[in-house]
Amino acid sequence: MSHIAKERKKLLARVNRIAGQVNALKRDVETAESDSECHRIMQQIASIRGAMNGLLLAFLDEHTREHIAHGKTVEERERAAEELIEALRSFRA
Amino acid sequence: MSHIAKERKKLLARVNRIAGQVNALKRDVETAESDSECHRIMQQIASIRGAMNGLLLAFLDEHTREHIAHGKTVEERERAAEELIEALRSFRA
Amino acid sequence: MSHIAKERKKLLARVNRIAGQVNALKRDVETAESDSECHRIMQQIASIRGAMNGLLLAFLDEHTREHIAHGKTVEERERAAEELIEALRSFRA
Amino acid sequence: MSHIAKERKKLLARVNRIAGQVNALKRDVETAESDSECHRIMQQIASIRGAMNGLLLAFLDEHTREHIAHGKTVEERERAAEELIEALRSFRA
Repeated sequence: MSHIAKERKKLLARVNRIAGQVNALKRDVETAESDSECHRIMQQIASIRGAMNGLLLAFLDEHTREHIAHGKTVEERERAAEELIEALRSFRA
Repeated sequence: MSHIAKERKKLLARVNRIAGQVNALKRDVETAESDSECHRIMQQIASIRGAMNGLLLAFLDEHTREHIAHGKTVEERERAAEELIEALRSFRA
Repeated sequence: MSHIAKERKKLLARVNRIAGQVNALKRDVETAESDSECHRIMQQIASIRGAMNGLLLAFLDEHTREHIAHGKTVEERERAAEELIEALRSFRA
Repeated sequence: MSHIAKERKKLLARVNRIAGQVNALKRDVETAESDSECHRIMQQIASIRGAMNGLLLAFLDEHTREHIAHGKTVEERERAAEELIEALRSFRA
């Protein structure tokens, strides 16, 4: 069983929380009238960005452990390594 | 009128697109059965994280221009500067 | 007097510390013989990257306060805002 | 032979270039007199930060391929995976 199946509940809770934050942001952007709301919207965006960053890093950890370190064949481990390396490009800036 | 009101349509389109990506991720996490889906979920998470990162940076740009550089009083500019500095902590790692 | 002049001592101490870390890394890369040294070199690189990240963010804070919020003319504040926005591209990934 | 030994020349060239940038920054911080030099110093800091970020990511790629995917025993791969995960914390923000 994959790490996604094993951790599905925890992962789903995390994604659901982020979905809730994105929906709250949407409502606030729709109704924001004055500059004073800018600060709050900026904080929400920063918070969702932080949550997505943390989710990606936690996912990379599990992928590294399960599919690279514990992949059954060297081919499987090589493929999983290239998938991780592709995802790490997210942090190239 | 604030930069949020001026750019509401563009900002909403961006947030809506991200909301759609988060919902697609949710469905995929709910149904993922095998390891082969891990790669796709990892790509989705990396893509949403990148979109949130880009949204935050675009928002900081507008905030800097409108509320810091063009704030009407020095007090307003100082407050907006501290709000930006608070948001920049997101990148401290 | 600019924030660089005011904070020169602190800023120089920070840059000197980073220069020392980079020189130590250089020596370790030159002499590393075995895989066991890989971990230590990776930690050094991560540590210097973190120090440079913190230095950039601290510098952006001072630039925002002094040149954007407290710039004397709107032209000066606009120019400083565009300089900040240019530097923020570093975090686009 | 480790990936550091194999790639020593390339890695050293990269570290030497960064050392040169840090020394140039040091000289500029030491002599900066006016605000106009702030922009240049900010660009140098952003550039070194970007170079260190790229170096870390390139190193993580090699570590992943050599020590995690191609580690000889599962214990070796597990240890290398935990080393990578530790380094990835650098991107947690």
